[in-house]
Amino acid sequence: MGERATATAAAVENIEGEVGRVVEEAKELQDSVATHISKEEQSLRERVISLDSSIHRLHSLLESFLSNKLLDPKLAEKLDEDLQRARCIIVDGDAASFLPGKAQGGFLRMFLGPINVRASRKDIRLKVKEEYNGYRDRTALLFLLFPSALLILRSSVWSGCLPAFPVQLYQAWLLFLYTGLALRENILRVNGSDIRPWWIYHHYCAMIMALVSLTWEIKGQPDCAQKQRGVQLFLQWAMMQGVAMLLQNRYQRQRLYTRIALGKAKRMDVVWGETSGVDGQLWLLCPILFVLQGFEAYIGFLLLRTAFAGLVFEWQVIFCGILLVLMAVGNFANTVQTLMAKSRFKAKMKSKSRQEVD
Amino acid sequence: MGERATATAAAVENIEGEVGRVVEEAKELQDSVATHISKEEQSLRERVISLDSSIHRLHSLLESFLSNKLLDPKLAEKLDEDLQRARCIIVDGDAASFLPGKAQGGFLRMFLGPINVRASRKDIRLKVKEEYNGYRDRTALLFLLFPSALLILRSSVWSGCLPAFPVQLYQAWLLFLYTGLALRENILRVNGSDIRPWWIYHHYCAMIMALVSLTWEIKGQPDCAQKQRGVQLFLQWAMMQGVAMLLQNRYQRQRLYTRIALGKAKRMDVVWGETSGVDGQLWLLCPILFVLQGFEAYIGFLLLRTAFAGLVFEWQVIFCGILLVLMAVGNFANTVQTLMAKSRFKAKMKSKSRQEVD
Repeated sequence: MGERATATAAAVENIEGEVGRVVEEAKELQDSVATHISKEEQSLRERVISLDSSIHRLHSLLESFLSNKLLDPKLAEKLDEDLQRARCIIVDGDAASFLPGKAQGGFLRMFLGPINVRASRKDIRLKVKEEYNGYRDRTALLFLLFPSALLILRSSVWSGCLPAFPVQLYQAWLLFLYTGLALRENILRVNGSDIRPWWIYHHYCAMIMALVSLTWEIKGQPDCAQKQRGVQLFLQWAMMQGVAMLLQNRYQRQRLYTRIALGKAKRMDVVWGETSGVDGQLWLLCPILFVLQGFEAYIGFLLLRTAFAGLVFEWQVIFCGILLVLMAVGNFANTVQTLMAKSRFKAKMKSKSRQEVD
Repeated sequence: MGERATATAAAVENIEGEVGRVVEEAKELQDSVATHISKEEQSLRERVISLDSSIHRLHSLLESFLSNKLLDPKLAEKLDEDLQRARCIIVDGDAASFLPGKAQGGFLRMFLGPINVRASRKDIRLKVKEEYNGYRDRTALLFLLFPSALLILRSSVWSGCLPAFPVQLYQAWLLFLYTGLALRENILRVNGSDIRPWWIYHHYCAMIMALVSLTWEIKGQPDCAQKQRGVQLFLQWAMMQGVAMLLQNRYQRQRLYTRIALGKAKRMDVVWGETSGVDGQLWLLCPILFVLQGFEAYIGFLLLRTAFAGLVFEWQVIFCGILLVLMAVGNFANTVQTLMAKSRFKAKMKSKSRQEVD
């Protein structure tokens, strides 16, 4: 009995001591973490920001020297490349998490609240980018298969008349898809990608259209061939969109890898759709994109005509028609802008290499 | 001329040196940041995790001592409180960002990809929580006003017949609202809140229902009073929901502040709806909640009856009916569970204080 009491006393004393140590360690650890976060991170952040502003200052100084002809162009170019390299080290590395970064914007705030979606580590940022590419690949495949299946079933099984449920399922999927894309692209933007704002707006428009199309009653027999003309055209356009997305994804990825290999791009760059790059494929991609945009506008006009001819007078038809036309115009303008930027860049490169030959 | 050349040379030399320094500093800074992230954070993370497991180990040791009667109950209680305090310091402080944390779950992954939504700093986590409460307050007000306005306009302006557009606008708003709530609650969970999983599932169900209701055709004249019976009941239920949400929010916030003041709760706790606390208000809240749940199930049954009586045979009616009944049952079960947990806790507290009096 006495022995047991002693053993108990020892165990109790032991556990008391251990608990005390744990409480002490918890306090100490909390202090370490707080210091780690507030002091060290703060000092690193200040250094990164000051370096970033130095780079900007030197860059504009260099330009003013060059425009006043105070500097040999070749030297200026070399220095400019050095500065770009320094900026790349900062922006592309782990230090990027300390740069102020683009504001998160209303869209993310609306859905997620004030949470920060900036990844602190470079490898996570790259993982986010990779996942986005993967998501687009999977999406493009479904984009091709889903409407194709609906159209094939329409003529083979459903005898020319689409039932409401599968079409609505498709529309709900579109809404989910575009919401996911818009959220991801906003997250990529916060993480330093230079994705063109239009492609994000484009997805907002597509979200709204998918939402509106859900409220759009799919009319059945009789005369459904005529009443469903809009839906049918929309599905055809979606199929073409799928083909174009697959081509774009392949092209974009190749181009991005080329640019990364050349050291010209930060790896967070995403350019939805149309930009400079692998020439052979671009001459295939561009016509397809223009045809697609033309077709998009054409469907918009058809919808508006249907509405104003009094065949199907629902506000959804007019709304979708206007939205499709706006999206087509915006896509066209942005594609042309990107192509022009690309040709300017090419001309610059050409004159540069000519100089070097001279 | 010579003077100018000298000045130019000096400026050039100056800028060359500066650019060189900037490149050097960029490299150095990148190394510092990488070290900061990989080494120091790693060591802090290991310390936090090992401390956390010590706390768990001591806690179970304490319980086994107590169940074998090896330890004085009063001492055991004191030690247990110490351990809880240590755990609070870790979990509630900045150190929490180094704990492994709950997995982000499929829902966030589906919408956002693999981005981490865990806030590293305590103050940001609290801001997220505050914003969530604010969002719920704003939401509850709209939840009350939007359907009330629709119902008032229905009888005063629209002569008993709801037009499709405002109802669809309301449904789209519901979809957006529930998506936002579900995303925010998942984010809170990742950030250490102990929100009951059911309330999140409940919002998934509500999202699906809002989506389905969008595809649900709002029938017009003639006989719209009969055909719109489901929509009308749904709006009435939504109004009651608004009142209950306002009451809940007030109650929850008071309760949370009380618990924080008592040091019993981590500040990330959110308990949607029904839990222990401010007694006077609970006796007002509970009956309202039960009535609401009953009404929810009643609407579900009415919808199912309408469908099977052949009045409005659409799949949406059946689907929404089943979903409403399921949601009502789930809500009821969870409310009862929480109330039981609360009464157990109260009984424990009572016996404890009686012991202390003895």
